[in-house]
Amino acid sequence: LDYQHVQVPFEITLWIMLASLAKIGFHLYNKLPSVVPESCLLIFVGLIMGGIIYGLNDRSPPVMDSDIFFLYLLPPIVLDAGYFMPSRPFFENIGTILLYAVVGTIWNVFGIGFSLYGICQVKAFRLQDVSLLHNLLFGSLIAAVDPVAVLAVFEEIHVNEKLHILVFGESLLNDAVTVVLYKLFRSFCEMPTIKSVDVFAGVGKFFVVGLGGVLVGLSFGFTAAFTTRFTKDIRVIEPLFVFLYSYLSYLTAEMFHLSGIVAIISCAMGMKRYVEANISLKSHTTVKYFMKMWSSVSDTLIFIFLGVSTIGENHEWNWPYICFTVIFCLIWRALGVLVLTFFVNRFHVNTITSKDQFIIAYGGLRGAICFSLVFLLPDFHRKKLFIAATTVVILFTVFVQGMTIRPLVDLLAVKRKRESAPTVGEQIHIRFLDHLLAGIEDISGHWGQYYWKDKLEYFNSKYLQKILLREYDQPKSSIVLLYEKLERKHAIELAQAGQLGHGPAQPSFLCSAFLCSSSDRTVITDQKLEDTPNPDVLDNMQEILARNLYRIRRTGPAYNRHTLPGDSEPAEHAKEILILRHKSL
Amino acid sequence: LDYQHVQVPFEITLWIMLASLAKIGFHLYNKLPSVVPESCLLIFVGLIMGGIIYGLNDRSPPVMDSDIFFLYLLPPIVLDAGYFMPSRPFFENIGTILLYAVVGTIWNVFGIGFSLYGICQVKAFRLQDVSLLHNLLFGSLIAAVDPVAVLAVFEEIHVNEKLHILVFGESLLNDAVTVVLYKLFRSFCEMPTIKSVDVFAGVGKFFVVGLGGVLVGLSFGFTAAFTTRFTKDIRVIEPLFVFLYSYLSYLTAEMFHLSGIVAIISCAMGMKRYVEANISLKSHTTVKYFMKMWSSVSDTLIFIFLGVSTIGENHEWNWPYICFTVIFCLIWRALGVLVLTFFVNRFHVNTITSKDQFIIAYGGLRGAICFSLVFLLPDFHRKKLFIAATTVVILFTVFVQGMTIRPLVDLLAVKRKRESAPTVGEQIHIRFLDHLLAGIEDISGHWGQYYWKDKLEYFNSKYLQKILLREYDQPKSSIVLLYEKLERKHAIELAQAGQLGHGPAQPSFLCSAFLCSSSDRTVITDQKLEDTPNPDVLDNMQEILARNLYRIRRTGPAYNRHTLPGDSEPAEHAKEILILRHKSL
Repeated sequence: LDYQHVQVPFEITLWIMLASLAKIGFHLYNKLPSVVPESCLLIFVGLIMGGIIYGLNDRSPPVMDSDIFFLYLLPPIVLDAGYFMPSRPFFENIGTILLYAVVGTIWNVFGIGFSLYGICQVKAFRLQDVSLLHNLLFGSLIAAVDPVAVLAVFEEIHVNEKLHILVFGESLLNDAVTVVLYKLFRSFCEMPTIKSVDVFAGVGKFFVVGLGGVLVGLSFGFTAAFTTRFTKDIRVIEPLFVFLYSYLSYLTAEMFHLSGIVAIISCAMGMKRYVEANISLKSHTTVKYFMKMWSSVSDTLIFIFLGVSTIGENHEWNWPYICFTVIFCLIWRALGVLVLTFFVNRFHVNTITSKDQFIIAYGGLRGAICFSLVFLLPDFHRKKLFIAATTVVILFTVFVQGMTIRPLVDLLAVKRKRESAPTVGEQIHIRFLDHLLAGIEDISGHWGQYYWKDKLEYFNSKYLQKILLREYDQPKSSIVLLYEKLERKHAIELAQAGQLGHGPAQPSFLCSAFLCSSSDRTVITDQKLEDTPNPDVLDNMQEILARNLYRIRRTGPAYNRHTLPGDSEPAEHAKEILILRHKSL
Repeated sequence: LDYQHVQVPFEITLWIMLASLAKIGFHLYNKLPSVVPESCLLIFVGLIMGGIIYGLNDRSPPVMDSDIFFLYLLPPIVLDAGYFMPSRPFFENIGTILLYAVVGTIWNVFGIGFSLYGICQVKAFRLQDVSLLHNLLFGSLIAAVDPVAVLAVFEEIHVNEKLHILVFGESLLNDAVTVVLYKLFRSFCEMPTIKSVDVFAGVGKFFVVGLGGVLVGLSFGFTAAFTTRFTKDIRVIEPLFVFLYSYLSYLTAEMFHLSGIVAIISCAMGMKRYVEANISLKSHTTVKYFMKMWSSVSDTLIFIFLGVSTIGENHEWNWPYICFTVIFCLIWRALGVLVLTFFVNRFHVNTITSKDQFIIAYGGLRGAICFSLVFLLPDFHRKKLFIAATTVVILFTVFVQGMTIRPLVDLLAVKRKRESAPTVGEQIHIRFLDHLLAGIEDISGHWGQYYWKDKLEYFNSKYLQKILLREYDQPKSSIVLLYEKLERKHAIELAQAGQLGHGPAQPSFLCSAFLCSSSDRTVITDQKLEDTPNPDVLDNMQEILARNLYRIRRTGPAYNRHTLPGDSEPAEHAKEILILRHKSL
């Protein structure tokens, strides 16, 4: 027996196996995941594992290594989040998201830090040795909402798209602020005196860290898109580039002390549309599926490790400090959301309702990022207190808030996500309104988001697409893509039901005519919709369609980590439809 | 700048990136890969990289770590090889493959070892200090044909299936013999005296190492199949289990000093048919695609590292020893193949021609396994000589033999692989003949391979499928599967050409009737093939088909690492077919 030799890969594989088997176990009992969020169950499994290790070895189980977390576990989740980010709601609400992420986080950091410093002045609590700087440092790590925890809970409660993107976008973008404040306060703690110039340098750093991350991410993203132009003869390694370049963007950003999360998200969002057009359909399936798989495993491992790391003797239990931390986290977040939303609502017609505000405040879950940051703190005599407080805040938010948010959403009747995809008619109207609004903004001289979106789209089709796409000829209408997807699905269903015609069949003329008109931007009004259309017109239309329908891409990002687009509709349901259709025919 | 922090993942990512970009680079110039095998080009890139590192640092570049090779780079390639192994030719020739792998390898080891010992006795060469045991140890590592090198070359020359499987199967299965002999001689080298009982124990070990590997592999494979029974609600992590269980089988076998290669191949071959039936179509695409991608990257890295490791000062150049090693490797392999094939041909009707024998002998390429084994040798004063000899043998076989084998195959007009997949008719005949031969063998009392295959199939459908498959009701005929695949492809093509009928279409009655008859094993002879068939019969048939066609699986393994099944037919070709069909309709 030579265990030493294979120990590292063997143990890693076993941990992943445990995580995957735990996931299967939860899903075998359908009732459990519908009541308790999966993250809670996984932490619970971790607690049991930690207890077993603690009982067997009689010493604290190993703590999740911060390096492992930041270098290996976090990137897949953020990549997945960025790649499948619904870009329309994200960019429509980017102002609000940034406000919450930057101003909101700063508000929380200083609010929590100063109020905890106030608590430390109460003599009865015996906390007078915790300085203001240490409290602020603690505030900077405990204030940030965690994307992993937010994703895990919000994916299961299906709130409306805007609410989802507000909370989730904030949790992603606050990384830049957290990185800056955390490093600033940590370096202040080690400095003998703090000059005012240091404080100003800190403020300047916000922009460097955030915008630097975006720049690094976009440059890697465009390089990835450019690289996939040349993979036509070697399809097998196409998916690799998506992963390699995004990971490199993350590592490069981390290397230069920029925000890795912001970088990888910019990279993923920047490359997506070009990469998807360049790579083959099967490569695309692999990228999507593998990304989902990987982020799901990472996520599972993080929560299990969180549970395992909780067990042990790393904690100093000072109840007043810990309880007040939880209370201040809740209060300052609620206040922050109220105040910021007040300003946001003054400038928007589509306001954030008070119900939404409550869910935004209540959905501010903390998670593994705080946990890893607190272990990265330099050693000082109250570190164990901070660890204990962080652990309690995480467990409180994940268990109490995570488990009650679903009933609360039901109780308050918060607007839910619409289940069905937008119809072709809706898509046409949205597209039409976009163009209309861009025109109105241009005429009125108000350079709003529609104007910029139009300019960006122009720049994209004029320059970027020519450089980054392999087969650039003309922009394909998303409606044509949708039609083609529906047609393909229909064909497969017919084939499965054994009703595929082998002779020439009449193409649906109404549909073809409609599509021609919408893709050519000319409205056919005097076309008579007869049963036997003019063969020339038909040929012409079919040629356009055949050209347009040739390459197959999915539209409409799906937004749940645990299911893939095709899977959402259960097999039974599809079977039923088939049988019904079969009978009707 | 904090490079230290991200060094490990950053450098790994950069190496993989370099490998992938090198691959893209070769394929941009179509002429290059058609003359020089990719493995040679990659070694060449490695040599240049090594030269640069050597020039910049003024010391030998880092040598490929044997642990990294055996634990991380080799398993993906072997898993890919095992998973996509064409099982029919493999099991049809298993006897011959085993003879080459076991007896042939032993023959080579002792042949090369003893003849080199003879060379060492020549005083002029100054090699008298190399003992017989050391020569045998060297023989044991240099004798084994390398699967990675064989795959890289044979995938590009497209020889007939039997020849391919003979060389490739031998290169995989000889691992058990190599492991045993290498470890035996290494321990003999360290023992003061060798007792005869040790030698017998060594012979016994062959069976333990080989059969143990098969057992470990099969048990993990069946566990994997069993696990995928329960992944219905959580499709995202399905592909993970294929990778986790096969990797665990490899690591477990290595841990117990069994043959890891044999284990992972048994695991992959054992699980494949059950896993494919259990997991979703998209998971299956991901598994296939990711496996190809991963093995392709591993393979690339191995050859680049081989090149990099060649540069440096690890070598002791004793020309007679090195030249005679190359010569003996060639001679003993040629002799071994001649002698063994003589015996094989006496017992087979379908003999191995002398051309095939030449290609088998000439295709005995050495590669990274020898290279890693030679670096794992315990330190002794002639280790550098062995390293030099191994390097030269590898470079000679990969460059000289690898580059000349394609022209030789053309020159000798060796029978090529048939390009087209077998037709439905052929498949039916093969199936029919299998049953017939099993019956003949049963009656005549000769228990040959058809008899055993039939028994195994019976055991499989009677017990294994019930345990391992989620939706086990009745064995699906592979002809139905093929029909369904063709139907689906046809449907997609029709949809792409815009000719999908939206009204009810006449199903192809001939086809349905034929399939019913073949799947129900009753021949419909008096059925009149009219244009308007009896609706009851039609409904009945469609019901059978709808039930059978419901789950979609691919048949027919493709056997090239660089292309995936769907990619083989270029887009232009498909387009042309579509246009032609369009016109004819």
